[in-house]
Formats: sequence, C-alpha cells, structure tokens
Amino acid sequence: MILILKKNPETQEYKDLKAWLEAQHVIVKETIGEERIVWGLLGDTSEIDADRLGALKIVESVKRMDEPYKKASRHFHQEDTVIRIGNCEIGGKDFCSIAGPCSVETADQIREVALSVAKSGANMLRGGAFKPRTSPYSFQGKQEEGIRLLELAKKESGLPIVTEIMEISQLPLFENIDVIQVGARNMQNYALLKELGMQDKPVLLKRGMNATYEEWLMSAEYIMAEGNEQVILCERGIRTFETYTRNTLDLTAVPALKRLTHLPIIVDPSHGTGKAELVPDMAMASVACGAHGVMVEVHNNPEHAWSDGAQSIDTCEFANLNSRMKAMYQFMQE
Amino acid sequence: MILILKKNPETQEYKDLKAWLEAQHVIVKETIGEERIVWGLLGDTSEIDADRLGALKIVESVKRMDEPYKKASRHFHQEDTVIRIGNCEIGGKDFCSIAGPCSVETADQIREVALSVAKSGANMLRGGAFKPRTSPYSFQGKQEEGIRLLELAKKESGLPIVTEIMEISQLPLFENIDVIQVGARNMQNYALLKELGMQDKPVLLKRGMNATYEEWLMSAEYIMAEGNEQVILCERGIRTFETYTRNTLDLTAVPALKRLTHLPIIVDPSHGTGKAELVPDMAMASVACGAHGVMVEVHNNPEHAWSDGAQSIDTCEFANLNSRMKAMYQFMQE
Amino acid sequence: MILILKKNPETQEYKDLKAWLEAQHVIVKETIGEERIVWGLLGDTSEIDADRLGALKIVESVKRMDEPYKKASRHFHQEDTVIRIGNCEIGGKDFCSIAGPCSVETADQIREVALSVAKSGANMLRGGAFKPRTSPYSFQGKQEEGIRLLELAKKESGLPIVTEIMEISQLPLFENIDVIQVGARNMQNYALLKELGMQDKPVLLKRGMNATYEEWLMSAEYIMAEGNEQVILCERGIRTFETYTRNTLDLTAVPALKRLTHLPIIVDPSHGTGKAELVPDMAMASVACGAHGVMVEVHNNPEHAWSDGAQSIDTCEFANLNSRMKAMYQFMQE
Amino acid sequence: MILILKKNPETQEYKDLKAWLEAQHVIVKETIGEERIVWGLLGDTSEIDADRLGALKIVESVKRMDEPYKKASRHFHQEDTVIRIGNCEIGGKDFCSIAGPCSVETADQIREVALSVAKSGANMLRGGAFKPRTSPYSFQGKQEEGIRLLELAKKESGLPIVTEIMEISQLPLFENIDVIQVGARNMQNYALLKELGMQDKPVLLKRGMNATYEEWLMSAEYIMAEGNEQVILCERGIRTFETYTRNTLDLTAVPALKRLTHLPIIVDPSHGTGKAELVPDMAMASVACGAHGVMVEVHNNPEHAWSDGAQSIDTCEFANLNSRMKAMYQFMQE
Repeated sequence: MILILKKNPETQEYKDLKAWLEAQHVIVKETIGEERIVWGLLGDTSEIDADRLGALKIVESVKRMDEPYKKASRHFHQEDTVIRIGNCEIGGKDFCSIAGPCSVETADQIREVALSVAKSGANMLRGGAFKPRTSPYSFQGKQEEGIRLLELAKKESGLPIVTEIMEISQLPLFENIDVIQVGARNMQNYALLKELGMQDKPVLLKRGMNATYEEWLMSAEYIMAEGNEQVILCERGIRTFETYTRNTLDLTAVPALKRLTHLPIIVDPSHGTGKAELVPDMAMASVACGAHGVMVEVHNNPEHAWSDGAQSIDTCEFANLNSRMKAMYQFMQE
Repeated sequence: MILILKKNPETQEYKDLKAWLEAQHVIVKETIGEERIVWGLLGDTSEIDADRLGALKIVESVKRMDEPYKKASRHFHQEDTVIRIGNCEIGGKDFCSIAGPCSVETADQIREVALSVAKSGANMLRGGAFKPRTSPYSFQGKQEEGIRLLELAKKESGLPIVTEIMEISQLPLFENIDVIQVGARNMQNYALLKELGMQDKPVLLKRGMNATYEEWLMSAEYIMAEGNEQVILCERGIRTFETYTRNTLDLTAVPALKRLTHLPIIVDPSHGTGKAELVPDMAMASVACGAHGVMVEVHNNPEHAWSDGAQSIDTCEFANLNSRMKAMYQFMQE
Repeated sequence: MILILKKNPETQEYKDLKAWLEAQHVIVKETIGEERIVWGLLGDTSEIDADRLGALKIVESVKRMDEPYKKASRHFHQEDTVIRIGNCEIGGKDFCSIAGPCSVETADQIREVALSVAKSGANMLRGGAFKPRTSPYSFQGKQEEGIRLLELAKKESGLPIVTEIMEISQLPLFENIDVIQVGARNMQNYALLKELGMQDKPVLLKRGMNATYEEWLMSAEYIMAEGNEQVILCERGIRTFETYTRNTLDLTAVPALKRLTHLPIIVDPSHGTGKAELVPDMAMASVACGAHGVMVEVHNNPEHAWSDGAQSIDTCEFANLNSRMKAMYQFMQE
Repeated sequence: MILILKKNPETQEYKDLKAWLEAQHVIVKETIGEERIVWGLLGDTSEIDADRLGALKIVESVKRMDEPYKKASRHFHQEDTVIRIGNCEIGGKDFCSIAGPCSVETADQIREVALSVAKSGANMLRGGAFKPRTSPYSFQGKQEEGIRLLELAKKESGLPIVTEIMEISQLPLFENIDVIQVGARNMQNYALLKELGMQDKPVLLKRGMNATYEEWLMSAEYIMAEGNEQVILCERGIRTFETYTRNTLDLTAVPALKRLTHLPIIVDPSHGTGKAELVPDMAMASVACGAHGVMVEVHNNPEHAWSDGAQSIDTCEFANLNSRMKAMYQFMQE
C-alpha cells in the first residue's frame, strides 16, 4: 500500500499513524519529497481499511498495491481451485454445462426439461424455486414445493442441482441441493454470504448488476473467510446505458478473473443478453474466452414459461448448442 | 398496456391470449393494421407480467402505459403521504434534517454527536449499528451494542432514531428504533422488504446503486403491498463511470419522483458525493429542488471515524449547514 | 409507429396532427379507448421525428415499431453487404484480420510490423497517423509524415491500409488509403460523416464510447444517406463503471447487429480491454460469436510504443493468435 | 507522480528510465521496498504520458499526484477566471442566465423569444443554427440563415449570442457571435478545439455524455494550450442506465469543478433532464450548489418546436423562473 502524506504533517498525527501501522505489523518505508511524503507499506495490508486511512487529515491519498482480498487471490493461491460436482470438475479439466428453466413450474415441466438436458449431455440442472422478481405481483416461484420438484427431477435425471437462495431461513430446505446460488441482487447481502460461508456446499456467486471485479471477489471473500472455499463465480451481465439487451455481458471478466483469482468462473448468457436468439452465439464466445462452464436457461415451451421466456431456448436448441460447446471446448484444448 | 401482435398470428394462440386477458378483467381494443395488429388493454393491468406477454410467439412487443406499481403511484393516490416522526412531518409542511455518524462507535461519540446535532436543530439522529462493508475484514459495526447506544443517545438527546437493518433476524432489536433503514445493497432483498411490510414502523428505503426510478418504486411497492405504507425514499447516488465522486448524486430524482409517487423523498449527499467538502453545496441543492429532507453524516471527529470519515462533516459544519438549509427551505416556501 | 393520444384531445390539435401525418403519406389507424386514443401509423415512418411528435400537447407517448434507420437496416436489405478490400471480402466468406501499431512512429517500426503481420497472414495493416489524445501534451501522431510512411509500408508489405481521419481538411491526404477509420470520439461528428458519405472508399466506423446500437447505426446511416454504402462497423468497448479494463467490450453487439443490419461488423479487443494479456482470449471470443473480422494492435516493441503500449501485443504473439483465429473461423464454418 | 517498479528491474531498463525522466527535468526520489521499488517524481509532470510509462516492462503501476492539466488547474491559477460578456461577468459577481430556443426556426420565432427573455432579464440569447441530430432525416438547423437570424435578434434585443459550431469550416460565419458553443458530441473533437484555441472569443464547452471531470478539463486544456483562456464549462448531464430522464444531470460537477479549476461553470438543465416539467426545479438546484449561470431552452410555442420541444419551457415560465433564480442567487450571497 502506498500512502501519500500532505506537506508538513502535524508531528503528533504523523507519529500516531506510524505507530498504529507498525502495530498492524506493517513496515513503513518513507521518502521525503519537496511537496509530499510518500510511505510504502510493506507486509500484509489486506486487513487495513484504505478508506479510513484516506480520511486522515495528514493523508493526501492512498493506493493499494495488493488486492484487498486474500483467500480469493491468485497471488496467495497459485493453483486453480477445482470443485467436483457430480461427474464434473469445475475449474479443472472438464467443461461444465448447466441447463434448466428459469422457474420450476410443474412436476412435468421440470422432469421433461431435466431428462432432455441430461440426454443432451448437460452436467447440472438449474431451476428457480425462490424467484426475486421486480414486481410483488409477479409469480414469486413455487418455493418449498419447487425444491421438492427439483429433488424429484434430480432422482429421475441423475443431474446435480443448483438453485437460488434468497434468505437465511430458507437454508434447511437446501439440504439435498448440490450447489446454492446467490443471485445478482444478493451479491452484497453480507449476512447471507457469511451464513453460506459456514456451510459445506459449493456456492455459485453471481456478479451484481453494478459490481466491479474487486467487489465481486470481496463478496467471495466473505464466504471464504468463514471457511467455505468452494465458490464458483458466474458472470451474468452488468447494467449499462444499452437497452437493446437486458444486460451487457462482460465476457472480459473471464480472462481477467482467471488472472486475479484461482476460483472457477462460468457465464450465464441468458441473463447476460435477455434474448434467446443471442444466447447460442454468446455461449460459444464464453467457451472461446476460457470459461469453465456455461449456464443456460432451457425450457420445454419457452413462450409459455412463467418467467423469462424471452431469454429461454428450447430443449432442441440446447441439444444442438451443448454439442457445439463441447466441440469448441475440445478445439480449445488442442 | 399496448400489445403489438405479429402479422397473421396463429388463430388458436390469438384466441387463447384474448380469452386469458379478458379473464384478468382487461378489455381488449383491437386495431388491425397492414403489418401488425395493435391491442390496447384497458383496465387495471398492474398485475399483468409484461415480460411474460412479450415472450409469446404471437407478440411482437409490449408497452406499459400505466406504471407497474399501484400503491406507490401518484396516479392512484393524489395527496402526499405525510409521515410524522417525533416533531417532524416528513412529506408535509416540515423540512426534516437527519444527522449523525456513519457508525456508532462509542457511548461518548454517539452521545456527543446526538446532543450537538439536536442543539443545531436536527430532527432525527442517524447512526449505523449493522454496517454492510465491502470487505469482511473492515469494521462491521457494533451490532446489538450499537443499538443499545443509540437508545441511550435517543434518551439524552430526545431525537428519534433511524438505523439500518441488514437481515430479518435482527428485527427484534429494532423495537425502540423509530425508522428502519434499508440500505442501497438491500434495496432488492425482497424477503427483507416483505417482512418490513408487515411491521408498523416507517421504513427509509435507499435507492440501489443501479436502480431505476421504477425499480426503486417497485421495491417500495413490495413493502406497501404487505400493508406498511409508511415508506420514505432516499436518493443516495447511483454508480456511473465518474470516479471523482463516490457515486453520482441524481438530484433530478427528487422532482421526478414527486410526480410519480406520493411518498416523501429525502437526499443523502454524504454517500452521494463521498467527499465532505462537497456535502454542504449538494445539501443546499437538495432543498432547492424540493427534497422533503436531507440526511447527512456528521461526526465529532471525522478524520478518526471508524468508517466513511472522508464524507463526514463535523458538528460545527453541521450547525452552520442546518441553519442554512432551514433558511433555504423558508425561502423556497415564500 | 404507435402514437398514444391523451384523453379528449382538443379537436383542432387532433385534426391538424392527423392531416400532417397523412401529408407524410402515413396511414392513421385509430382505436378509441376509455382513457386514451391509440393511433397505429402505417407506412414509412423513418423520416418522422418521434421526439417532435412526443412534444405535442395532445400526445402522451410515442413508440417506434420500425428502426429509425433505413439504408443500414436488415429489414429493407436482407442480404449481407460484402466489401472487398485487397484479397479479403469483409462480410462475406472471409475472415479479415487487421493488425498494426496504435501509432506510426518511424519508417523502420511500421515497415517491420507490416512485413511481420503480412507474413503471419494479416489481411490489412492498421496504424495511426492522426491521433486523438486526451492530453494536448501527449504525442499527437506523425500526421502527414505518418500517412507517407503507411504508403511505403503498403508498398513493401502489399497490405491494404486503414487509418483514422480526425477532420475533413485531412481528406486529400487519404487518397492512397484503402479504408478510412472514424474513431469512437468522432462517431457523432456529423459534418465529417456526411463528407465521408460523398467519398467512394470504405469507412470503418467505430462505436462511440457511450453509443447505443441504434445511435451507432444512425451514424452509419449518415454516411450511407450521402451515397457511400461501404460501411464497416467496429465494436471497441463502451464506458461503464468497471475500471479494471479500459472499456467494457460488448461482444453481444456482434450477433445483435448482425440481426439489425446487413453491414459487416468487426471487433477491436485492444481498445476493448486496454490490456495486452486479455487481447488474445477476447479476439478468439470475437470469432466465436460471429465477427467478420478482428482488429488488433501489434507492435514490434510494445513496451516502447509511443502510445497504447499496454494494450499492444508483439509480432510473435500476433503470429500465434492469427493462426488460432483462422483455425477457429474454420471450425465455426464446419 | 508515483511510479511503482517491479521487483528486481533489469539494470539497463532501470537506468534508461531514470535518465529519461531526469532529462524531463523531473527529480526521482527512490524507496527500495522488499517487493517493489517506489519512485516519487517531483517537479512538473503534466507533460509526461502516464500510460506510456505504465506500459514499460519494469513498471508495475503509475499514480498521478497532480492533475494532467495545467492552464485549467486551480492549483496553478488560484483566482477565478472572470469572463465579461455583454453586461455580465461570468465567473465573477454576476449570475448569468442564458435562454433561447433549441433551434432557430423563423425570424418571428427567434425575435419573439429574444425580446421576451430580454424583458425577463436574461443575460444572453441561445439558439441553434447548426444542429447535431441523431438522424440524418431530422431537421439539421437553418445553417447560415440561422446565424443571420440570430444576428438580427441580437440587434433587436441587445442580448449577446451563444450558438453551436460543428465544424472548423463554419468559423467565418461566427464573426458576430459572442460565445461559440462546443456541443457534447464534439467535446473530444480535438481538431476543432485547437482551432477555437486560436480564436479570441469565449468558448462554451459542454461536457461530453460520457466524459469524466478530468477528460472535460483536458478538452478545456486543448483550447487554452493554444492561447484562448476564455473557456466556460457547461454541465448538461451524463449518460447512465436511467431512462426516465434524457440524461442524468450531475450537479455535483459544479462544486467539484470549482475546486479543480478556476474556469466558470454553468448548468443546462434542459438537456440534463429532457423534460420541461423538471427544468425549473433543477435550475434552482443549480443556483443553490454554486453554478455561475444557467442555460435554459425557452420557446414561444414549445409543443410546436422543430426540435427538443419536450424539454423547452415557454416564455412565461421563463419569466417566472428567471426572477426566482436571481432571488435565489441573492439569497445565496447573504
């Protein structure tokens, strides 16, 4: 961390700050300039609050050299984190395709989709039971009933399940769920993140609509700091001025985060674009830039989906897309 | 709601949709054009899911004419909602100034600030006990202890209290809190909003960092739909590409929302700018564009604040600002 | 175009508007609702100013059903526009790779890069002679001298040249340039666009940093409306809140624009990311989502580049990337 | 400027860089840390290209301590720049209100508006002759004819005139124009800025839709570096995700820029909001946060305006607003 002190700092302030920093086991290297004093802080500064230092009267500005996250950082953990789910090693040698409807609607619907995507070679089933909807008057998901239907679909299809949690009190219902998803709107719901950090289950952490890479990794750090290091990151688009697409899919996050962190990263082109006709091309691009997996909304009858029909592809389109993604992944390995 | 149907829709689809809409007590007025069929939907469409209609194969596009919110809408509720808190009628004839530290730190700190801002004419005390911090390693607030200190400060200063809730399970601790704040990061934490909708306490709902006016009002609708209509909106800045300020304060939200809704709206220039030196000017501008109140971070020793020191003004600056805001408010009434 | 009129419009206003619209050869189809009157406007409305209609007292809102652009629209021009440059048909069967330094610096530098990328199979040479720099104190490009050096490099390498124009008066210098580039900052420099519309040379139109797809296509329409229909679109990233990358590369623009327009579209991952280490992955993703070509900044000695060194790859990296892109393009065709 | 060098830099690179910097009359102060070497660069670094340094292999990162602009910087020029136009000292003791239509339409229209706003106490007349429109099919302004009509209106009303230039070749027509406006779309049209830097006329520089404060001031620096220091900055809203308003008016720019620069700054709430009903409140807020002036679109018949009618207020509304703004300005002085 680099600290720039204002010209002629008050002696007492100056001494106090130096003493406090050293108490944090940080070594202070000083350069006296004509206009400013520059301190280089050596050692582990990840637990030092840069904003707080920046507020001090004698401090002109602060620049972090190391990331504020530790457990999520590639810097402190070179080798990739590999998370085994069912037959698939996410973050390792396998490409992981996750498919399923936005919402679980009926026993038939989820069974039909599950069996179909399993047949097409999907590695995991997705489906929402608890739905965060913008309107209180929109369908809110089948709740407990939805979880039960997912469990049945898992039995029949043999696919592991990922579904979203919205609230700590729902946790007991997730006992047979393989991966717990945290949605974009809850990426900074820290109480929930801490609770999930105490579980022994992989967490799929979606990027918030306006979250920077650093904030996203800090949310992963919240989970990891409590002991659960099985975090899968999922890029799902950010909010920009462009309204043609529902969000702006930021695929550069994939190669960028693979440099910043050892955690696996997948892409959700369905929410990322909001338009079914754009999903296959963006799914292929996700594989091409190195994503460890892709999560796609698939419905047996998209136009009658109870939610997000406009961005769901049908089971035939998925069969075709999945084989193309796997071929592309092979091609990339060569 | 206006529905544009594709050219030559399949007869069955067409009949089904018309029948379904009429079952929702909506009257369908049709125009047959050369290239399209246009349906005007009359009646209450606020509970119809526009996205879902838009996904139908026969539908080309959908345009809402009425807002998707009802209880929060000025359209259905002409007169301003006035919420009495302590000596102040927010949304009514009074200007409400809310002041206090970002975080409750010690008994002395919160007491000192409370007594000072009360003396300066503040109408309410703010102070964080539960702090949503980007880093798990930053100070997370004094929690229960913080609530207790706020209660003491309330006794001594006579000021009503507003403080942030992060999680449903914290609710019992808020019994003596006058206004429950929902922070920007939790604006779409729907489980929390529903729970607060069942309480009989005013809720101060901050705008999410990337929330549109409509999404913000839909979050208010979540609370109101459960029965609690005492919602105060708080503009606190949105996230843009500009990094000089912590957020971009969107003051236009004030006159805009006063048209869209009957709920009171206040402004938080401290988070909106992130820089103490910009707070007074933007607080004055907030009054000038019609805000019902202003919430300012005030600390007895900003540069040693445990959080957000850079955006806190000190108690003397507040005394001066508060009298200028009240004078400006008077001036605006004339 | 759909026009929503306010309840009980003044008769005269109403008649005038109807008459005016019909004078524009537009057929007005009317639906009388309880709360509103809906007009469906049939015929060519692309030259009608929606904002202007929206300002009329009797008009509540306006919704365009057809794009406001015509010549650029896929709707009026089904088959892809193919532009032949040197040995390459952009928008047709060929994949077009464009490579070269950000700025032309010296005769040796541009020659060395040109010969190297030609050897690696690039189809076109890029290089800036006129540089739009944020600071008036930064290197502004070699100007005329730079154009001369590009012409020499073209002779020696046999590669067609694309370079940026900043101002109409520079046009005479572009006589031997094969493709004229309009930079992001000038995407809405309409005087320049109109002038280029009168030339008989392909124009490479970069997307503005904050331009929507529609605005971008309207800028293409400015060029095409003057008679020059040889426009190549280039996605180069938009400005968002994320600061880790220089811009946020919006790859979804590729499949989206291929639906909206018949014009070829390429991607510039160098400006899109601002970091050389991210360029190859994003270049591959560009091919995977269907781009007709990729433009990459390549330098013989990136770290000593006079501009944008941080985002330039070296000639060896390009040789490797180019063969991988071409292989990927083959793979996509199968 | 602070330069962070990578651990164990190559000796030659290291020596070369140090020598080069010293050749720029910069003093290098070094701190050797365990992981990095930190250089503090003292002296005038405003002409050093930070990006270029950042690209060097041995450099890890660069942090500017001083702004990259000089002539526009408050740091090098403490006292406010005051620009006298007609009876008004912008940036000095006077509040300057600028009013007029978006476009000059007819002799009667511009005369009527000019006489009316003059009577209401406006200090300057605005009106567009050259209009940058998104669509090539929209009204492009009356061009030369418009300039002539503005000159007549100036004669009759006695008001100085500000109007927009789009292209260098139009400059001769601006001989009798008092203030030349550069629109948001041309804020980074550097060829145009340099040309205006050689004129002896005040330039009103609008902020680009996606320009940071720094980029905006760098554009002012382009003008000033050529010798013309009469630059007036105009905040007119930035582009964000919010679509209810045409742009998001960033009023915080006013107090922020008054700290960063000595140049006068005014606000355009008409483009900033895009809605006439929001203009008066935001104009008042502009005065309250310290703007040196406000520019408002005023039309004698807004709903029939040939452009931007939806954001124009009528002459009566202006008369009322102007007296309120002047009273507010008085109130602020007390």
